[in-house]
Amino acid sequence: MQSTPGGIEQLLRGDKRAVARAISEVENDTLQARDILKRVYGRTGRAYRIGVTGPPGAGKSTLTNKLARYYRSNKLTVGIIAVDPTSPFTGGALLGDRVRMSEVELDDGVFIRSMASRGSLGGLSKKAKEAADVLDAAGYDIIILETVGVGQSELDIAGAADTTIVVLVPESGDGIQAMKAGLMEIADFFVLNKADRPGADQAVMSLKMILGFRSPDAESWMADVVKTQASEGKGIEDVAAIVQRHRSSLEKTGALAKKRRARLERRIREIVDDQLHTDFWDDQRSRELHEKLDLLFQRQSNPYDVAADLIKDFRATNLKS
Amino acid sequence: MQSTPGGIEQLLRGDKRAVARAISEVENDTLQARDILKRVYGRTGRAYRIGVTGPPGAGKSTLTNKLARYYRSNKLTVGIIAVDPTSPFTGGALLGDRVRMSEVELDDGVFIRSMASRGSLGGLSKKAKEAADVLDAAGYDIIILETVGVGQSELDIAGAADTTIVVLVPESGDGIQAMKAGLMEIADFFVLNKADRPGADQAVMSLKMILGFRSPDAESWMADVVKTQASEGKGIEDVAAIVQRHRSSLEKTGALAKKRRARLERRIREIVDDQLHTDFWDDQRSRELHEKLDLLFQRQSNPYDVAADLIKDFRATNLKS
Repeated sequence: MQSTPGGIEQLLRGDKRAVARAISEVENDTLQARDILKRVYGRTGRAYRIGVTGPPGAGKSTLTNKLARYYRSNKLTVGIIAVDPTSPFTGGALLGDRVRMSEVELDDGVFIRSMASRGSLGGLSKKAKEAADVLDAAGYDIIILETVGVGQSELDIAGAADTTIVVLVPESGDGIQAMKAGLMEIADFFVLNKADRPGADQAVMSLKMILGFRSPDAESWMADVVKTQASEGKGIEDVAAIVQRHRSSLEKTGALAKKRRARLERRIREIVDDQLHTDFWDDQRSRELHEKLDLLFQRQSNPYDVAADLIKDFRATNLKS
Repeated sequence: MQSTPGGIEQLLRGDKRAVARAISEVENDTLQARDILKRVYGRTGRAYRIGVTGPPGAGKSTLTNKLARYYRSNKLTVGIIAVDPTSPFTGGALLGDRVRMSEVELDDGVFIRSMASRGSLGGLSKKAKEAADVLDAAGYDIIILETVGVGQSELDIAGAADTTIVVLVPESGDGIQAMKAGLMEIADFFVLNKADRPGADQAVMSLKMILGFRSPDAESWMADVVKTQASEGKGIEDVAAIVQRHRSSLEKTGALAKKRRARLERRIREIVDDQLHTDFWDDQRSRELHEKLDLLFQRQSNPYDVAADLIKDFRATNLKS
């Protein structure tokens, strides 16, 4: 592993190709990736991170696209990480999103990366956050993490933001459903998109009613609901205005630092778990496990005792480095 | 922790209340749970495990229900673990399933447990498999693991079976989508439910076409597609017949032992990761992390070096036990 990965200076100067290469290293989990991330970390913390989540078809990509254009018209640069976990039963949404994205993609002040995976969502969530770090260090002012909200890992990604927007449509169901789903806890505010469709006012009312039950948090931020028709560009400024209001509130009360600190703690726990796993399952230990499988298969031992023995051995073994 | 948890003898004799209590311990991850699972493990391996997965609304519960009745009419006992991860945007499906289930629930030869969670899916998947072990040890002949197939963890649960059935409906999309979604790899066969709806024949054809591209596995099992109308009881015997055919094929070729061995290996890896995490993050180490957060927050260090230091310390520390 080289200690000064090529291109890191270009990356920190905001060179788009260096950024793209670095994110590819992260995405492919190469040997260089960790070095890049170590170097990059010291330059993070400047960008404002916005999470956009919601069910498939709610118009998250369109909203993200229009938000990006809005920020660009205000001379801010925007990095977008669009995560599509390719859920077994929603596969194929990705292409549509990519096409719609292209409008902003041509803008030099916008960087877009789609991440998809059929494999481990946990891994995908970690990589999305790392890619956001790269964009942060490269100097993008706003980073949007867009993700389909169909599982815990996707919600984790949305939760890795300073402001989290949950996008719903009139058909998404009522406020009670959103509450049950844990969306009330992660949403800093709701966007009701496709608000020209029947049932929009009812959906807004039902969401607001449930929000009324939520006690304002320590920073006395009150979540709200905004109506948009993202594809028509309607309501985008309202969304940006609430993001700004939320940001000011977080900064004024010191909640932003607290939020980011908690996020950092979670990140380290993730990195540790990941590394422990890798360190543990080296060739030697995988071989040991295979040897013990016979005993286990004949019910001469049980998985828990075998696991405990392996762990004991792991901790007793001196580190090679 | 007591070494002989109360009720274990009753459990192994198949006492329903002891089984229910043991599964509750597993579900709540109590101190007793591990002891129970250790004792139980030696008596597992007799039951045949069937995984049933598919998108929300495909009729998995109904199919599971009818299959259970079919097996009961053949004098086999049936344990059912129905996993509903309460996805943020499909919350609420559970109640409907429970109502439909009640028909078989009154039968003394059937044990049903629903598991739901808004939290970690990984944890839920582990608990579902552990609950299946309890049912196996309690003597149930057939264990059905039913789960909504909307994410990797749910697919893991379905994959923890000897035979995995993927249930689709004509609206689920075509074979190409199923292939992309990785369903081709986990399905031992497909059920096209609600086959009276328009598009059923087309869906079957498209699935069969894609299956044609799949090379028969080492055991030369060829996946197929069965049409059902589970709510009318139509096609249930066909499903049971293919399960039986698949089981015979697995047993004859020795593939069943191989499959179960691989499953056992995955289980141990899961248990190790889980235990490592718990051992690692004791109070002392959590405190250390908190102390280091300040440095990190000021970018005086980076998350990767902090993680590496903590791991080094963990391995250098002598075990208390």
